[in-house]
Amino acid sequence: MPALEPVLNTLDGNLDKSLERLFELLKIKSISTDPGFKAECRRAAEWLVDDLKSIGFDASIRDTPGHPMVVAHHAGPTPDSPHVLFYGHYDVQPVDPLDLWENDPFAPAIKDVGEGRKILTGRGTSDDKGQLMTFVEACRAYKQVHGQLPVKVSILFEGEEESGSPSLKPFLEANRDELKADFALVCDTGMWNAETPAISVGLRGLVGEEIVVKAADRDLHSGHFGGAAANPIRILAKVLADLHDDNGAVTIPGFYDGVEETPTQILQMWDGLGTTPESFLGPIGLSIPSGERGRSILELTWARPTAEINGITGGYTGQGFKTVIAAQASAKVSFRLVHKQDPGKIREALRAFVRERIPADCSVEFHEHGGSPAIQLSYESPLLTKAKNALSDEWPKPAVLIAMGGSIPIVGDFQRMLGMESLLVGFGLEDDRIHSPNEKYELNSFHKGQRSWARILAALAK
Amino acid sequence: MPALEPVLNTLDGNLDKSLERLFELLKIKSISTDPGFKAECRRAAEWLVDDLKSIGFDASIRDTPGHPMVVAHHAGPTPDSPHVLFYGHYDVQPVDPLDLWENDPFAPAIKDVGEGRKILTGRGTSDDKGQLMTFVEACRAYKQVHGQLPVKVSILFEGEEESGSPSLKPFLEANRDELKADFALVCDTGMWNAETPAISVGLRGLVGEEIVVKAADRDLHSGHFGGAAANPIRILAKVLADLHDDNGAVTIPGFYDGVEETPTQILQMWDGLGTTPESFLGPIGLSIPSGERGRSILELTWARPTAEINGITGGYTGQGFKTVIAAQASAKVSFRLVHKQDPGKIREALRAFVRERIPADCSVEFHEHGGSPAIQLSYESPLLTKAKNALSDEWPKPAVLIAMGGSIPIVGDFQRMLGMESLLVGFGLEDDRIHSPNEKYELNSFHKGQRSWARILAALAK
Repeated sequence: MPALEPVLNTLDGNLDKSLERLFELLKIKSISTDPGFKAECRRAAEWLVDDLKSIGFDASIRDTPGHPMVVAHHAGPTPDSPHVLFYGHYDVQPVDPLDLWENDPFAPAIKDVGEGRKILTGRGTSDDKGQLMTFVEACRAYKQVHGQLPVKVSILFEGEEESGSPSLKPFLEANRDELKADFALVCDTGMWNAETPAISVGLRGLVGEEIVVKAADRDLHSGHFGGAAANPIRILAKVLADLHDDNGAVTIPGFYDGVEETPTQILQMWDGLGTTPESFLGPIGLSIPSGERGRSILELTWARPTAEINGITGGYTGQGFKTVIAAQASAKVSFRLVHKQDPGKIREALRAFVRERIPADCSVEFHEHGGSPAIQLSYESPLLTKAKNALSDEWPKPAVLIAMGGSIPIVGDFQRMLGMESLLVGFGLEDDRIHSPNEKYELNSFHKGQRSWARILAALAK
Repeated sequence: MPALEPVLNTLDGNLDKSLERLFELLKIKSISTDPGFKAECRRAAEWLVDDLKSIGFDASIRDTPGHPMVVAHHAGPTPDSPHVLFYGHYDVQPVDPLDLWENDPFAPAIKDVGEGRKILTGRGTSDDKGQLMTFVEACRAYKQVHGQLPVKVSILFEGEEESGSPSLKPFLEANRDELKADFALVCDTGMWNAETPAISVGLRGLVGEEIVVKAADRDLHSGHFGGAAANPIRILAKVLADLHDDNGAVTIPGFYDGVEETPTQILQMWDGLGTTPESFLGPIGLSIPSGERGRSILELTWARPTAEINGITGGYTGQGFKTVIAAQASAKVSFRLVHKQDPGKIREALRAFVRERIPADCSVEFHEHGGSPAIQLSYESPLLTKAKNALSDEWPKPAVLIAMGGSIPIVGDFQRMLGMESLLVGFGLEDDRIHSPNEKYELNSFHKGQRSWARILAALAK
């Protein structure tokens, strides 16, 4: 087992050099959504290939119908070493409105913001070039000190993450054997706070559905027909109102099938994070949790499923008033899923629930809008324990296991297409302003991020 | 009391001449909504003034900021004769699309449609020139036969009915004393069917209100906030669903204050009209009455109040899907009122009902969209009995007392501004295609309409 300590020391000693390398990459304007920056995207991919080759990776550009992928492989110390696939993306968000940037977004800089804090400014510092380079630097230091990596490492960098990753699934499909590893490391996430690293172990799934209620075959005058003709908005309102009981629980039969209670020690860990209704909802002008009563904000958003109405329309919605009874009304609803909830069963249960509430002389149509199950790592996984301990050794406060209310598609793709779980670790902070002007990354995140990966790689090798 | 029979005979003998007069009026293109026909509107008013003068009315043009009014007066046989104000309008709807007309809309004609039926074709035949001339012809015949009218008659013809009557209220206000009569005769309505005359004794009132529910101070991502943040569409759906109980009754406290049960004999009369859920709802593709259970279609639409949702909007309503929790959602709701329901009280009761259902961290705004009480003639009114008997004497089947689901603003204006009830009698049929190409009026309606007014005037004189 190669010793960890000299690797950490090397990372400390090479910090300035690692910043020079990061800045080279940050200066490349790899905006994937704008065709005008196609060549720049390729240049970023080439820069990464060259850099990975310089460390000893077998790295190459892989063309796609869109921007190219970067794929790289490095053997482990022995043929039976654990094998990880590290995922990141080299493309960045557009930079408009440019006049809101305090610095040129593509002229990265280090800025002293006082109280001992320094930040790296520029587009891509946090999302995701700064993050992915923390991993590359950890590999580089291992090679420099020991001439080898502690585990077998494959790397996949895509260049279309900010454009919806159109080439990713076909690429995974076509290169399944090459990319399959024991598990994936996904760095596109953040810390709990500046002192507390985090590992995301749950990502909620999603079912989206549009409900169209149809009544009369034309719009009606409410004077003539009011009191006689069915009103599709009234029917739809009743359906939607029935989705929740008075305690905020979802009433669709079978909805909670597959939902597990979160272990007490995890709930206690989350309680310890100090998130309150006031701290979570206050910034958006609210104060009262809308979900199931008796559960904390973090449990509600991380480990409980939801039913949300995302849009509704029907009848006259312009200025003024029109005494119309509409022919139809529609709503877009979605469900956030957790644990083992089955998207297909939930969609069918919703449809049955709605149909039961449609009068015999009216009808309903459904339009499917995507469905994906939740991702949930076992809290008992040895992988998780190793990563958690490694992170806790590096940072002032122990690592916390968190979950995410939304989904990260790549994690589901890895699971479904490559049969591979993901470990989600990243060092971004909530105030990094990703996708906005003045994106930044803490120098501390970049430095201790490199050290964190060195520690995690060491732990995984054990 | 001048004898009725010779008046009726005179009307029969003069039918051709009365048609010539009507056709003169119909040829004038008095389209009030199109400024290009301003002079034609005035010409129609002048034609009416001349015609009324020729009968002996004190008739004059009264200018308004829009098209002129025609006002005419004729004394009764004695100073204490009953005094009626007859209302009609000389303006007509536009005629586009012109290519759908089988005849020139302003070249009126008599058309034999077989089975002994003849119709008058052209714009304004039914709405409202043909209708108003039935009354003028009845007056003319009285004058011809007896040299006098059986009651004191005032006439008000407006020229902006099809443009929303912008000048009417100020004109009533300014000429209150001149126009005040014992009651009004309003001819802008129809028969129950070709054999059965009808008198409208009820017109539902209206309260319109917009409800805007506000939750977070911005749109939210449902992945991050779903389960924690209040969803204004969910809140609004619950409010709207709560408006009706399982029997279709409105649940707002005090909503039914002032609602009277319709007399049994009236309900029986309505049952005799043969309107069924199938006959009423079938043509619009429905079959099940949506209002209070256990009440007939006619009672529901004529004599019961309603709560309708006329429009709703919130969140993402475009193509595809967006997992958003909206900052606000809004609905336009309206109530049809009957009998003595108080629009102001109902608006306040609605607002209290909604406020009770808004979570403490959310808010609601209301926007008022008009309110007017219902109009309800007493079923016991001697006026009604006289008119009903007079009509029953003329037509193959006895007159029925009906109501209307919607409102006719002039009737409310007469009541509120001049303290005057209206008798609503007209001879239009449902298939007259008013406002559409190929408007027509039954020759029978024109002829027996004249005779009906002669009978009604005679009855009122008693």
